[in-house]
Amino acid sequence: MMKTLAALVSFLFLNTLAMADSEFRHVVLLSFKEDATAEDITKIEKAFAALPDQIEAIQDFEWGTNVSPEGKAKGFTHCFLVTFKDKAGLEVYLPHQAHKDFVTILKPSLEDVLVIDYVAK
Amino acid sequence: MMKTLAALVSFLFLNTLAMADSEFRHVVLLSFKEDATAEDITKIEKAFAALPDQIEAIQDFEWGTNVSPEGKAKGFTHCFLVTFKDKAGLEVYLPHQAHKDFVTILKPSLEDVLVIDYVAK
Repeated sequence: MMKTLAALVSFLFLNTLAMADSEFRHVVLLSFKEDATAEDITKIEKAFAALPDQIEAIQDFEWGTNVSPEGKAKGFTHCFLVTFKDKAGLEVYLPHQAHKDFVTILKPSLEDVLVIDYVAK
Repeated sequence: MMKTLAALVSFLFLNTLAMADSEFRHVVLLSFKEDATAEDITKIEKAFAALPDQIEAIQDFEWGTNVSPEGKAKGFTHCFLVTFKDKAGLEVYLPHQAHKDFVTILKPSLEDVLVIDYVAK
């Protein structure tokens, strides 16, 4: 009985550790219209980077502009990597008012967007 | 004089910390041909995931399959995130024999690829 209990406890514990490693990554690639100004783009970068302070579900956030020498970015110039604990985090983020306000700022300058999410292995 | 020296030392120190934060991220999205089998795809996933053991320049590596509910992945099903200390790491990686061998395994099943690299801010 004690052995079964110990096995159960250690199974639950290991399971929790494994789950904690499986960050939910939300990858967003953006490209901008030709008539978007440098000022428009800076405003969008700052608005996106302000989201972690407004949306608690965001665990980690980073971004940068394309520096690949391979020429396979299909015109995308910006990559944003938003991390949530799990899919529930994304489900809080997507309809969040702060995210909606960001999309309103983004939309007029947006040429193309690609979104891919994955649970990190 | 001491004040100037202190300012210089703290500037250099802060600068070093900032540099250490600026990981070089190599984001690779893949999609596979319709005739690629589940076995072909598993072989590719394993071959990609084996690269960190073969190429020392890889600092961090993770991947996963698309779970985005937004439908904006443009057909890409796999995302791989390869981290280098800096661009020099990528320049070791790209022509590395282990990377070339991986591309040879990948090629016959590859439908489309997107690569975007950024220095994390």
